[in-house]
Amino acid sequence: MKKLAMGIDIGGTNTAFGLVDEEGTVFCESVISTEKYKKFDDYENYVKALCDAMHSIIEGVSFDFELVGIGIGAPNANYHTGMIEAPANLWKFRDDEPNPDDSRRMFHFVDDIKASFPGVEVAITNDANAAAIGEGVFGNAKGMKDYVVITLGTGLGSGIVSNGEMIYGHDGFAGEYGHVMVDSRATGRECGCGRKGCLEAYASATGIKRTAFELMAKMNNDSELREIPFSNFEAVMLSKAADKGDAIALEAFRFTGEVLGKSLADLVASTSPEAIILFGGLAKAGKYIFEPTKWYMEENMMGTFKNKVKLLPSGIEGKNAAILGSSALIWQKLM
Amino acid sequence: MKKLAMGIDIGGTNTAFGLVDEEGTVFCESVISTEKYKKFDDYENYVKALCDAMHSIIEGVSFDFELVGIGIGAPNANYHTGMIEAPANLWKFRDDEPNPDDSRRMFHFVDDIKASFPGVEVAITNDANAAAIGEGVFGNAKGMKDYVVITLGTGLGSGIVSNGEMIYGHDGFAGEYGHVMVDSRATGRECGCGRKGCLEAYASATGIKRTAFELMAKMNNDSELREIPFSNFEAVMLSKAADKGDAIALEAFRFTGEVLGKSLADLVASTSPEAIILFGGLAKAGKYIFEPTKWYMEENMMGTFKNKVKLLPSGIEGKNAAILGSSALIWQKLM
Repeated sequence: MKKLAMGIDIGGTNTAFGLVDEEGTVFCESVISTEKYKKFDDYENYVKALCDAMHSIIEGVSFDFELVGIGIGAPNANYHTGMIEAPANLWKFRDDEPNPDDSRRMFHFVDDIKASFPGVEVAITNDANAAAIGEGVFGNAKGMKDYVVITLGTGLGSGIVSNGEMIYGHDGFAGEYGHVMVDSRATGRECGCGRKGCLEAYASATGIKRTAFELMAKMNNDSELREIPFSNFEAVMLSKAADKGDAIALEAFRFTGEVLGKSLADLVASTSPEAIILFGGLAKAGKYIFEPTKWYMEENMMGTFKNKVKLLPSGIEGKNAAILGSSALIWQKLM
Repeated sequence: MKKLAMGIDIGGTNTAFGLVDEEGTVFCESVISTEKYKKFDDYENYVKALCDAMHSIIEGVSFDFELVGIGIGAPNANYHTGMIEAPANLWKFRDDEPNPDDSRRMFHFVDDIKASFPGVEVAITNDANAAAIGEGVFGNAKGMKDYVVITLGTGLGSGIVSNGEMIYGHDGFAGEYGHVMVDSRATGRECGCGRKGCLEAYASATGIKRTAFELMAKMNNDSELREIPFSNFEAVMLSKAADKGDAIALEAFRFTGEVLGKSLADLVASTSPEAIILFGGLAKAGKYIFEPTKWYMEENMMGTFKNKVKLLPSGIEGKNAAILGSSALIWQKLM
């Protein structure tokens, strides 16, 4: 009988899910709103809505199949415990909550899904780890035992695979490479984690936007970017400007590649991967981000590792990457 | 029948080796000179001298035992290939070598030892990885699946264990944490690897000595350290001076702890270990190095990881630590 795994990607706005076979073909998919259930006391209704929607796409499949498992990618997900622990943007207390203690925002997500799918294996991890497992099962890290996936979206996430296994760490939260410090001076950029100078404040879609605004202050070159207010500015605008030779956009990519490449040289010294895959919105800028990142990575790398580490684009990126990645959490155990 | 594993530690001056049981008791040990065989064309004689000496301690054991394997810790050792690859201080070309190409200095060490011990398992890794495996099998990381050992000797070595396995990386050389960059400015300290600003140029016995000399230039405090020339200066002198309240020595430890602690906070973000063990000469300074390192590590750590990671001294350090560590390469496979 055909085997399918459910992949679920929990984002701040929507939750996407779909049934995926071992070749990475998505058979059917659907989506529910996450935003609608964003408050603490919406959690139970969210789980019910998600499970109902999953049962309904399962019933809609026109052939017999075995559901081999449910893999979930979610922010602040702990692989070891199956919990989502105090996520920054999900199931937050209402303003009038009398006891807004984050230690109460620990959600037994895996158990809650299992309750609706008895006997089915359920596994969870964060979205960057899911992307990394997806690259290993379906994408550009197929067959590799030692590789790293860096997700360059709103923030910078990472999934580090060594000896063929994801590094979850003792507490289940390893791979927070966005929060290594690249500028420990008092002038380092404020990071969403409450500290200053973290890598993701520089190397991410948000980071390069901040760089562009610094450069507009520093440089005198004409640029169409000067017409866009900060709030409307998107990283993709920098690729378009760079295509036209915009000096500020080109310098923003060079600087971002410098910060990221230097930091990746350090990551190579610790883990010596076969490849580093850049994934997510900013990675879609292609040569503009890959070329300086590769150059600064090699330039700053210890001699032992020079010219050994591939810097690759995603092999699964596209509409279904997140669903594929989450389903791969199940498939990697069965292959 | 009693089982024993041979542990070999290849240092630049001497090679120590001994027979170790699964409890970590060293039954007999011996040593040969490495220095005597330091030239490229001495390699074969070195291997012969080492194998002869091992056979001779094996014959001297007064009870029947099974030799379950030979574990080796050596500089530039590659676990995957069993080779020692272009070591900086071993088997170097003579000055009149007509073709001093380092790609010729690739020594099939595991195979060469196996030739003298047919049927016996032989494994090799670098000395920091051997120390890390030793801590896991016999020392303070017993029972841990995710931990890091940092060796603070002449340089800074590291062994990173995740999911119960040593991270060797794709090329077998992972764990070069001494060569992450902590000061990428042009004024960064020169490192033995040819670059500038590497962690080991600050956090190691040599690094803290360099710091002490910088501080003697910067500070005006009286200090008995001012009587010692650079060439005669040893890191242990700083502990003795600190015991007497020497301001320069105390500041040297604080600064070293700052650099090391900040860097370890980054390592925690990537690998989230249960413990970090400080091993080697500089770690023997005890509270002088542990207290500032712990303080700066916690101070700079991402909130998720705060107060979760133990900073521990070695549990095997002493005369036989290196032999224990190397033998643990064999024992870890049998336990």
